[in-house]
Amino acid sequence: MTGVLDGVRVLDFSRIFAGPDSAQMLGDLGADVIKIEKPDGGDECRRLGVTSEELDKLGGPSPSFRSFNRNKRSLTIDLSTAEGVDIAKQLIADADVIINNFRPGTMERWGLGYEDMKPANPGLVYCDFHAYGPVGPMAHIGANDLALQAHSGLMSITGEEGGLPARAGSAIVDLHASLAIVSAVLAALLNKEKTGKGQRVDTSLLLSSAHLMSYFYQDYWLTGSIHRRMGTANHLSVPNQAFPTVDGFVVIIAPSDEMWQRCATALDPKRLDIEKFKTGSERLRLRTDLVHEISETTKTMEKNVIHKLLSDVKVNVSIVNNIDEAAQDAQLEAVGGVYSFEKDGNSRNYVAMPFRLHDTPGQMRLNYPELGEHTDEILSENGYSAKDIAELRKRGTIGQ
Amino acid sequence: MTGVLDGVRVLDFSRIFAGPDSAQMLGDLGADVIKIEKPDGGDECRRLGVTSEELDKLGGPSPSFRSFNRNKRSLTIDLSTAEGVDIAKQLIADADVIINNFRPGTMERWGLGYEDMKPANPGLVYCDFHAYGPVGPMAHIGANDLALQAHSGLMSITGEEGGLPARAGSAIVDLHASLAIVSAVLAALLNKEKTGKGQRVDTSLLLSSAHLMSYFYQDYWLTGSIHRRMGTANHLSVPNQAFPTVDGFVVIIAPSDEMWQRCATALDPKRLDIEKFKTGSERLRLRTDLVHEISETTKTMEKNVIHKLLSDVKVNVSIVNNIDEAAQDAQLEAVGGVYSFEKDGNSRNYVAMPFRLHDTPGQMRLNYPELGEHTDEILSENGYSAKDIAELRKRGTIGQ
Repeated sequence: MTGVLDGVRVLDFSRIFAGPDSAQMLGDLGADVIKIEKPDGGDECRRLGVTSEELDKLGGPSPSFRSFNRNKRSLTIDLSTAEGVDIAKQLIADADVIINNFRPGTMERWGLGYEDMKPANPGLVYCDFHAYGPVGPMAHIGANDLALQAHSGLMSITGEEGGLPARAGSAIVDLHASLAIVSAVLAALLNKEKTGKGQRVDTSLLLSSAHLMSYFYQDYWLTGSIHRRMGTANHLSVPNQAFPTVDGFVVIIAPSDEMWQRCATALDPKRLDIEKFKTGSERLRLRTDLVHEISETTKTMEKNVIHKLLSDVKVNVSIVNNIDEAAQDAQLEAVGGVYSFEKDGNSRNYVAMPFRLHDTPGQMRLNYPELGEHTDEILSENGYSAKDIAELRKRGTIGQ
Repeated sequence: MTGVLDGVRVLDFSRIFAGPDSAQMLGDLGADVIKIEKPDGGDECRRLGVTSEELDKLGGPSPSFRSFNRNKRSLTIDLSTAEGVDIAKQLIADADVIINNFRPGTMERWGLGYEDMKPANPGLVYCDFHAYGPVGPMAHIGANDLALQAHSGLMSITGEEGGLPARAGSAIVDLHASLAIVSAVLAALLNKEKTGKGQRVDTSLLLSSAHLMSYFYQDYWLTGSIHRRMGTANHLSVPNQAFPTVDGFVVIIAPSDEMWQRCATALDPKRLDIEKFKTGSERLRLRTDLVHEISETTKTMEKNVIHKLLSDVKVNVSIVNNIDEAAQDAQLEAVGGVYSFEKDGNSRNYVAMPFRLHDTPGQMRLNYPELGEHTDEILSENGYSAKDIAELRKRGTIGQ
């Protein structure tokens, strides 16, 4: 089957999470993605969060690197050399999309900024990805996912009520920014298809975090409300949080009076289906009381029993899964959320891209690349002779 | 300035957060978005999380509704009537994109499923958005953001170490799914521009949550690691978490030995720039000790002082902002992250879309619609006479 981005060439200069993950999705859609890495170790993500002993045991890069780098070819270039920059320039002149997450001004310093490259390639879609954006008082401050969870206010509303701030346990701002890059690039490619013209696009951890926080900012702007952390609960309705069971936790969400009625009847009518809890506003007012009563019921039951009981009567319910339970979810496989890919006789799982196109589906064609694995292949496709390549290698421009 | 989606018509049948937010972004990009609501109260989000007294005081819909419904026109149709379904069919036959988040099978029951509509409109991009997806053992279970934070394992790694599970304080799975819808629709529109053909696309809270958790699943699949909650900290490096100050919290992230050296020197060389903390693996091993020593230093200092000190020496640092501080961020304004829009002489702020296209930028053209505000206008554009409209109104098909 063909992909939407068949024939589209993407140069991915980015490292760590957001940029590489976005380029991977463009690869899933069919693009030829060239990952440009420094010869000395490449993307730091190859070693992120694992000791050298663990790396040896894995026989390859870190779990994170494997998550974010399928469907790419790796080319090593030393961009601190003029010769390395020349290779990059030549590649950019022929590319459809480039993505980079260097600090503002870095690509320009190399002569690889958008204005430098546009004359040679007016159809180019050029994507900058920064922490706080390309301009403004904080443009030059370094940051990562955690910093933006803090800066955006997300951390102030995450954690136990009255307790310490907590982070959302995954790099959600990074991975949200990844989808923002994909959206920006696809929108610009659509515009290019209509007009023939490329353009510059950008996003940042800041813009992405603000999108995730938008309705809290709106509430503050309108009413002055400054929400705080509430554990697993929510200011919007009761019950709408996790409850203890004999063998773990379940979340139960029943915002409407009708759903609450079904919930109360299914769980423990004598205790819960009583007059004072009948209306949503009373359930909000009697939050502590109601949460206590529901907990008294749920803590005597098994989580699977509660899940079946409530889902059967169409009450929103979920088990609080641990990572192993979530990773082995049959539903995720059933909806095409897992790619299974064979390498060296081993079949490995990878989380699929987060949306499906029924006629032009995303696909996993290539495993993560070894550092510089495709350097010769890519240079030779771009007119470099075997002799050129040998000389570039001798001088260290493309690594050893 | 023109938008990428000028001339594209989107029918938004969705409610609450993810679907409406995605349609809003398509509107930001220039699309004519028609929000189709039930005559009786419309999108429940209009009243979500606010009492009727608060609604009266606001003089309009809830903060959440305002966050997710700019750049749309509202059309009320009662889809439980054959006549209402006929209006929808006629609109779909002329539309470029439709988005819906009804339970699997609902649109089909009305005769509005993809296979029903494709013959009349082969160029249609038809987007289904579900909780767990259209197929599989959990397809028919209801869920919301919180349920998927639980199901995906995110809740199991969010919260205090050794404490209770917590939710990421914002509806991050919902809003991530919103960007997945935008990406899917843009990819399909790009394919349509190339081939003339539309297609069915879909995503779900499940696929979106799995994307946010991908590297944890990968780690489990490869090594069997089941990560757990660590407050604001991270298993990847130390320091990489929040620390107390005299007047709040800061996060400090210094993964490399060089950055740690600069951090230690700037904060308190005598206490921190010492032999045993020099290497990353020792900092990981001595986590408790090092976190204690850094905290002893930071808790005597003001957060702004630490922020300046560390950002000056290029250490990743951020203040843990509350909602009011984050919503008033000068950097967010500087990068175009806030739309300011005037209505009835009042200028109001709205969080902008999370990516920027420099030549065809997103724009706010319309405020949130009143329920059914554009019903007559849209029907008359589509060939209904004033008499037709009056009759539809009399019969309640388009509300009163």
